[in-house]
This record gives sequence, C-alpha cells and structure tokens, in this order.
Amino acid sequence: MDRTRRRIRISIDAMGGDYAPGEIVRGAVEAAEQDADLEPILVGPLDTLEEELAKYDISGLPIRCVHADEFIGEGENPALAIRRRPNPSIVVATKLVKAKEADGLLAATATGALVTSAVQILGMLDGIKRPVLGAVLSLIAPTTVVLDLGVNMDCKPQHLLNFAAIGTVYAHALLGVSKPKVALLNIGKEKVKGNQLLRETYPLLEKSGLNFIGNIEGNEILSGKANVIVCDGFVGNHIFKFSESVGQFINNYIMNKFKDDPEVGRLLGNRLEELMDLLALPDVVGGGILWGVDGVVARTHGNSRAPMVTKRLLQAKVAIEKDVVGCLKTELSRIGRSVNL
Amino acid sequence: MDRTRRRIRISIDAMGGDYAPGEIVRGAVEAAEQDADLEPILVGPLDTLEEELAKYDISGLPIRCVHADEFIGEGENPALAIRRRPNPSIVVATKLVKAKEADGLLAATATGALVTSAVQILGMLDGIKRPVLGAVLSLIAPTTVVLDLGVNMDCKPQHLLNFAAIGTVYAHALLGVSKPKVALLNIGKEKVKGNQLLRETYPLLEKSGLNFIGNIEGNEILSGKANVIVCDGFVGNHIFKFSESVGQFINNYIMNKFKDDPEVGRLLGNRLEELMDLLALPDVVGGGILWGVDGVVARTHGNSRAPMVTKRLLQAKVAIEKDVVGCLKTELSRIGRSVNL
Repeated sequence: MDRTRRRIRISIDAMGGDYAPGEIVRGAVEAAEQDADLEPILVGPLDTLEEELAKYDISGLPIRCVHADEFIGEGENPALAIRRRPNPSIVVATKLVKAKEADGLLAATATGALVTSAVQILGMLDGIKRPVLGAVLSLIAPTTVVLDLGVNMDCKPQHLLNFAAIGTVYAHALLGVSKPKVALLNIGKEKVKGNQLLRETYPLLEKSGLNFIGNIEGNEILSGKANVIVCDGFVGNHIFKFSESVGQFINNYIMNKFKDDPEVGRLLGNRLEELMDLLALPDVVGGGILWGVDGVVARTHGNSRAPMVTKRLLQAKVAIEKDVVGCLKTELSRIGRSVNL
Repeated sequence: MDRTRRRIRISIDAMGGDYAPGEIVRGAVEAAEQDADLEPILVGPLDTLEEELAKYDISGLPIRCVHADEFIGEGENPALAIRRRPNPSIVVATKLVKAKEADGLLAATATGALVTSAVQILGMLDGIKRPVLGAVLSLIAPTTVVLDLGVNMDCKPQHLLNFAAIGTVYAHALLGVSKPKVALLNIGKEKVKGNQLLRETYPLLEKSGLNFIGNIEGNEILSGKANVIVCDGFVGNHIFKFSESVGQFINNYIMNKFKDDPEVGRLLGNRLEELMDLLALPDVVGGGILWGVDGVVARTHGNSRAPMVTKRLLQAKVAIEKDVVGCLKTELSRIGRSVNL
C-alpha cells in the first residue's frame, strides 16, 4: 500500500511522436525497469498498447494503460484537431493529470497540440499567460538556465519577472543551486541600459526578493556568473539557435581541417564529440518542461526514440518529486506581494 | 599634380586611444609606407606630433599634421567634454572631413566622443537618426554582415529598412558581393512570425527593391545563406557578444582538456588559433565604420596598437574609394521611392 502511494505516476501520450507507439512504449517500459518508483500510464487504443507491451516482459512492472480511441495524426493541424475531436490521446493523458490520477504528463506530441491541451485542460498559473520554455544552453555553464527560449515574443516587465521566478525554481529544484543568482540579459551593466522593456523590468527585479545580481551581457551567458538569465522569447530564441548551430559549424570546420590528418583526428576523437555536446545540449536538465502550466507537463522532441523517452520520464519524475509547480506558485505569490503589481 | 589628387586623405585623432599618441602616429607612418596613395593627416598638439614623427624616417611620405591644442583625456565624459571645449583633437579632425580637407576620419577615441563629434559636425543621412554598427561576425561566414550590433535599441520598421540598405552597400562595396541577399533575423520562416516590429518590417522589405530573401533563424546566421542579416541593436549586440565569447570558452575548454596531452596540443597548435580567430574576428572587414553619418568615419578600439591602426587606415581607404556614403545615399533615396514611407 505504502509502496503504491509513493510511486510517481506519469501519463504518456503513447500515440504522439514520429516513432509512436513503438518507441514511446519501449521507452516507458525501460523507465519502469530502471526506477521502481515510477508508474508509467500509457494512453492510446488499448489493443495497440497491448500489442506493443506484449513485446516485453513487464511482469511486476507498474505499467498501466488507459484507453483513448483517437489520436492526432501526422500533418493534422494540432490545435484544430483538439477542438474538433472529443478525446484524442493527448487530451485523455492531460485529463488524467487534471483529475489527479497522474502526477504529470510526458508527450512527444506536436508542440501545438501539447500546448493547447495543457493550457486548456490544466490552465495557467496566476499571472502567467503562456507557457515558458527554459533550458541549460550548454554544459560549459551547467548551472545556468536561460529563459524564455521562444514562446513569448512581445513581453512586458511582468513577463520577465515571471521568467525570473520560473528560472529560480528551475535552478533550485533541478540544477541544485541553493540561492540562484538572477540576471537580466542586457547590453551593458548599468541600470539605465537597454531597451524600454529592460529599463522598466530592472527596478521590479530589485524589489522582487529574488537574488537579482543586475545586468549580464551576451559574452557572459556561458560564464556561470548567473544561474538564471532572463530575456524575452525573441532574444532567447536567437541565442538558443545560434548556440546550437555554433557547435555544428565548429565540428564541420575541425573535421574539414583535419580530414587529411588521420592521426590528429584519432587523437581528438571522442573529445571532439564531447566538445560538440558541450556546445549543443539544450534541454539537458529540466526535460523540456512547459513552465507556467498548472501541472508538470514535459515534452520531448517528436523524433525521440526510446532512450530519450526513458530519460525524459526520469527527468519529469524529478520535477514532480521536487514539486516544481507548487514551488513556483509560492514564489509567484511572494513576488506579487513584494512588487505589488 | 595628378598623383596628389588621387591620394586618399584621412584625418586621424592622434590623441585618442589608450596608446595615443605614440602607437597612433606609428600606425599612420606604417600605413603611409605601405600605401603610397594614402595621406594621413595627424591631428593634435604640433610639438607632440613632431616629437613622435621624429622617431621615424618619413622623408617622402605624404604625412601632414594639423594643430589642435586640446584633447579629451582619460576618464572624461566625452560628450560633455565636446560640448564644453572649443577644439579638442577629435573635433578638429572631424571638421577637416566636413570642410572636405580630408576624405574620411579614423579615431581610437572613446566611442561617445567620436559619435557625438561625427553626428554633430557631419550630420546624419536623411532618414537615419543614429549611427549603425555592422560587422562580419566570423570568418565561418566571411560574406555575411550583421547589423545593427548595438546602437539602436527600440527600433521601428523604418530603422530595420535602413539597416538593410546599409548592409547591402556594406556587402557590395566591402565584401565584394554582387547582389547581396538580405534577410530578417526571426524565429521562423513564415512572414507572420516574430514580434510586431518584424511583422511590420517584412512587407516593407518585400517592397524595398533590395534582394530580400525572407526570414532567417539564429542557427543560420553563420550558414552563409544571407549576406545581410538585419536585426535591432539589442538582439544584434547579444549575438555579437555571445559569438565573441564562445570562441574564448571553447579555447579554454580545449586547452584544459589537452593540457595533460602535449602531443595533441602540438598537433592542434596553430589550427586551434585559426579556429578561435574564425569564431571571434568581429570588424574583420569594414573597419568599424559608423554607418549613417554623412562622411566616412571609422573607429578602432581604444586599445589599438600601431598594426591595428595601420589596418584600419587601409580599410577606411577602401571604404572611401568605394564611395560607400554616396552609394548609401543613392540606395536610401531609391528605397524611399519604392516603399513610399
């Protein structure tokens, strides 16, 4: 009895993603094998799920299936599909979280469908209008999260304040930083620097009670000086994509330079790959959580195969155990009182 | 006679920069030695200039001196200094351009003083309010210029249109691209993507008559797909600084990894330095020109030593020979008619 209660239940859209249901189901089985406290709840047509599960020996594993007879197919407009159909698998999986029959959700489903479903069914936390994406950009700075990375474009100071709160919870709960240092990404150190948005946000962050250390510049993003780097989704998206691409360009360049020199190539070998990983490992920690939604919702790329699904499930479990949503509610409410918006 | 007329005359604030006047004068002498068609005009206290010039054999070199008995010292507020004093060296040097006694200006002077002086004395081109900085970010993409890199923060569509025109002249005249491809830095390909500024700018660029190829994302900045990447100075500044820093971080990382392995270090040797240069060589081409000013005004870092001063002088000469300011006026006026703003 106790054993069951301690398990973390994560509902999974078994029909979402390029390799669904096969790789999703396999990833869930492997996660359950690796962590006895994880209870995957697969959502999809029961016969399909049972057919997939029959490929593994799951005796004793706490894997459950919940039926959904529809799912959102390749090439459908995800938001429309959700509005038109009563119960596609992503909706059923999300409703399990709403009904507290699951502690969180993982999906490789198209982002539009996932976000629509999460926002409509679970709702947003007070003061947050749209989900926020954050990530550790690079293992060069493994305890620095940057957000928002691409959802919120035309931001107001209140939004950046929310990002700072989310980043603080993220860095504390998932990166193990005791008192995360929060910085604004700006073009200079001085309070009066930057565009209007930043000049208005700076004094709010000063009053927020967060561990605000001031402005940080683009050349300090990977310096480790700040644990939470706040920017709007427009700037964040550029930094994120540019960062990812630099690794690839350097890789190409080095490979090109050294292709006539097999000895150097051999010596560099794995260390080069390590370097590339260092530069481009977004979502390393945090598992692609949609922050701001009233529930733990984790996404994984549509092209995820079983090992990635397993990894994301275990990451989502940590987020649930750390109660990141509860922590964020507390933080937002405390900031609301401090700043008196 | 003919010989003299063909010479390009560049006035130089000999008193601006961390190593002025010594390194500035030396750089000017070396540039004159390297290029017989360059005529440096050194501006500063005559006795100081003559003392410095006495260190070199300048017989036959077309170096001239123009007196200015004041200059802006270390730690002064440059904009204030310019307003309070009648004729500091930067002002005298800029006035030579205005009076057509020089074809362009080079200065290592503090940016604030240089910009104030250039804007007040030379004025801005029609429709451009503040100078624009552009640069080739990296030799990975040697025919791609990104601008604005940090002057213009809260931009309007008209500003981005100006940046596109400036970038077109830059890529054509200084990077040798025959029909520069212009792109907007955005978070997705579609016309409706991005923030309000970009959504309003896109149709203007379509009508501009420039070779507009649409939106480009952060991971394509170094891909070479576009020759001119347009963004506001806020985003540009972050990309620029982040790009510079990545080279340094990778350098540190590789050095750290390989410090116990001298053999690998030896094999990589110069090629690593080459890689670092590839990543962080801003202003490689274009010589730090202040675009939008009605005259060729080039800046070089305050910490420039003689070889950099020489390089910048030769680059500024190319910009003058290509008549970048005249080309830009033509381009802006043509766009004005196309877009009918």
